Amino acid sequence: MHRIAVEDYAAIIRGHLAALQTRPVELVPLALAAGRVTAVEVRSPIALPTFRNSQMDGFAVHASDLRSIPVRLPILGEIAAGAVDPAALPQGSAIAIMTGAPLPAGADAVVPVEDTRRTDGVVEILRGRDAGDYVREEGSDIAAGEVLLPAGLRLASRHLAALAAANLMDVAVRARVRVAVVSTGNELVAPGTPLTNGRLPDANGIAITAAVTAAGAEVVDVQLSGDDPARLGALLDRSIAAGAELILTSGGISMGAHEPVRQLLEPLGATVGTVDMQPGGPQAYARYRDVAVVCFPGNPVSSQLGFALFVAPPLRELAGMPPAVRRTLALAAPLQSTSGRRQFLRGRLTEDGGVATVAGPGSHLVAALAAADVLIDVPPEVIGLPVGATVDTVDL
Amino acid sequence: MHRIAVEDYAAIIRGHLAALQTRPVELVPLALAAGRVTAVEVRSPIALPTFRNSQMDGFAVHASDLRSIPVRLPILGEIAAGAVDPAALPQGSAIAIMTGAPLPAGADAVVPVEDTRRTDGVVEILRGRDAGDYVREEGSDIAAGEVLLPAGLRLASRHLAALAAANLMDVAVRARVRVAVVSTGNELVAPGTPLTNGRLPDANGIAITAAVTAAGAEVVDVQLSGDDPARLGALLDRSIAAGAELILTSGGISMGAHEPVRQLLEPLGATVGTVDMQPGGPQAYARYRDVAVVCFPGNPVSSQLGFALFVAPPLRELAGMPPAVRRTLALAAPLQSTSGRRQFLRGRLTEDGGVATVAGPGSHLVAALAAADVLIDVPPEVIGLPVGATVDTVDL
Repeated sequence: MHRIAVEDYAAIIRGHLAALQTRPVELVPLALAAGRVTAVEVRSPIALPTFRNSQMDGFAVHASDLRSIPVRLPILGEIAAGAVDPAALPQGSAIAIMTGAPLPAGADAVVPVEDTRRTDGVVEILRGRDAGDYVREEGSDIAAGEVLLPAGLRLASRHLAALAAANLMDVAVRARVRVAVVSTGNELVAPGTPLTNGRLPDANGIAITAAVTAAGAEVVDVQLSGDDPARLGALLDRSIAAGAELILTSGGISMGAHEPVRQLLEPLGATVGTVDMQPGGPQAYARYRDVAVVCFPGNPVSSQLGFALFVAPPLRELAGMPPAVRRTLALAAPLQSTSGRRQFLRGRLTEDGGVATVAGPGSHLVAALAAADVLIDVPPEVIGLPVGATVDTVDL
Repeated sequence: MHRIAVEDYAAIIRGHLAALQTRPVELVPLALAAGRVTAVEVRSPIALPTFRNSQMDGFAVHASDLRSIPVRLPILGEIAAGAVDPAALPQGSAIAIMTGAPLPAGADAVVPVEDTRRTDGVVEILRGRDAGDYVREEGSDIAAGEVLLPAGLRLASRHLAALAAANLMDVAVRARVRVAVVSTGNELVAPGTPLTNGRLPDANGIAITAAVTAAGAEVVDVQLSGDDPARLGALLDRSIAAGAELILTSGGISMGAHEPVRQLLEPLGATVGTVDMQPGGPQAYARYRDVAVVCFPGNPVSSQLGFALFVAPPLRELAGMPPAVRRTLALAAPLQSTSGRRQFLRGRLTEDGGVATVAGPGSHLVAALAAADVLIDVPPEVIGLPVGATVDTVDL
């Protein structure tokens, strides 16, 4: 691989991660299942509603008793929600009934309390109703054994409501992809360390961890490596021991003299090359002890971009999430680009629904990235675009 | 309050929750800050880049030495990333330099390694460069003391990258709104309990908890109450002891005989009424020991709808999240509605970008809600619409 198009490299990485698609299944309680993805379709063990019940507070009646309105009917008692096996309702009578309470045999309609007048054991019905009115039939929402939720669905509150209503305690979900994040570079220290002697804070450990989590996967290890390839190998061993199925490295893959990722992984068959984009051109991938490794450049802007373009899409798909939103927007300010390289410029949405670049193209502009809402995808042949020209964007 | 429009009730609840806008501030480590919202603007304590450095692996030079190309320059050594205070570069010489390494005094350009040929301590430069080329100036991303992030920003990975790059360990964020969820109804049991004797599984405890969490707030208590108002009061006391700033109840507010929420809170000044919508018309709100309470009907579809329309918008705003997406879509199937009431029908997106209703209007159709992608907002005067008619929708 020497110079490769963004889409082609994305396809390669998708293939490189194909083994992750076979996900173990976990049974998790509903209270912990929000955001997880159903592993198999879920069938309802029971009919919903589980029994024929009232849709309103009112009076259960025989609809045939309401042919002439108003009509006065004796009230035989009351059926509360949670009542069990109420006695059958004789023709020519009514019984007070609460929303959700079981309908007595014989009754076939409910008259809402608003359409009645009650006096001394008698209810006057002021409006006629047909059989079935305000009655929720057993199984009218779903029958026992029917599919309640499909496989591959990311669970939101309404899906959990349906699972709970079907009296399920647990749901079978796909195990999250377990990811390790390893930053490399002798100069890197944990953020907050005094920056003497040329030290730089490691931004990738925290930022790639957050990006992985936002893509629905789970970070099981975060490490910081110097420039020693042997030490890096020991850290990767540790990540694999921690259960990592995918290792994301940053730094150490370019043309310099101290490139530990390259030095460790190239002898093991890593593919190192340049994707036709700026920033984030240098990219690599490998297998280490049969675990997929994807390697980004060390600069936080480059590594965020590499993650967003190559790793986030397959992870989001496994997590049942939609792809990042792509839009065509009009430029609110002129744009300059470097000829010959596809640029992903950082853009900010404007009040009027357009987009403007934030700062320049440099991969070191991490504060500018933080101010951006989208990436503007500028083709290699473009060197400039005027206000009003349309550009393709990807939401950050 | 008797009968009130959706938008008016939404404004009332927004006002009812106004006190929540004053959020306590928490200092959280960056590794735990994803999804949290900056409490104040964050200024960078340092300039970024922190020192003048190379954008490429290559050779640092005096640009003025490149006037005639090719040119051969002696290599004085190498500057690695993390190097400290390199010696000044004399005119007429070059020094190998790694990406991110500090530029020596005197040098004002970097020639990428691709544009050079190296032999025995001498580098041949094949392409001219101007002063500043491939040099990242100190502070060119952000100056010390400049605003790095605004207040009220929901932190994503790129923001965390900027905070870490600025050598910050922690970030001041708004405390999440602490919410208690209380389901009421004698018939309700925890999901998974045998459904004998008219028992029904409580879906609201799990589903409202998930909805609150998805709206960026934090659930501190989840409880199940029978129909005894005194017992309900004791549960609300417990939720307040657990730190709840907002209590969401479901059930117990309609016209029936066993309405514990109404019985407890109406004497304390609760407002109970009907919002002009189906499902979820009956709604109430109150203060209990000065804590805001918002009361939904008991049916899971109604309570999910009430949460989505009235409580989610102010919570999402506090959590720095955008409002739910509203779209105008074309009907892929005819639609029927009940005259006289604004309906929020459950809709499913179709392959061709349209929308069709899922099942009927009943508030008991929780399986149908789980199959829906959007709510279709149908005005009260509409009784039917043909294929192709446009409707307003809100994403679920």
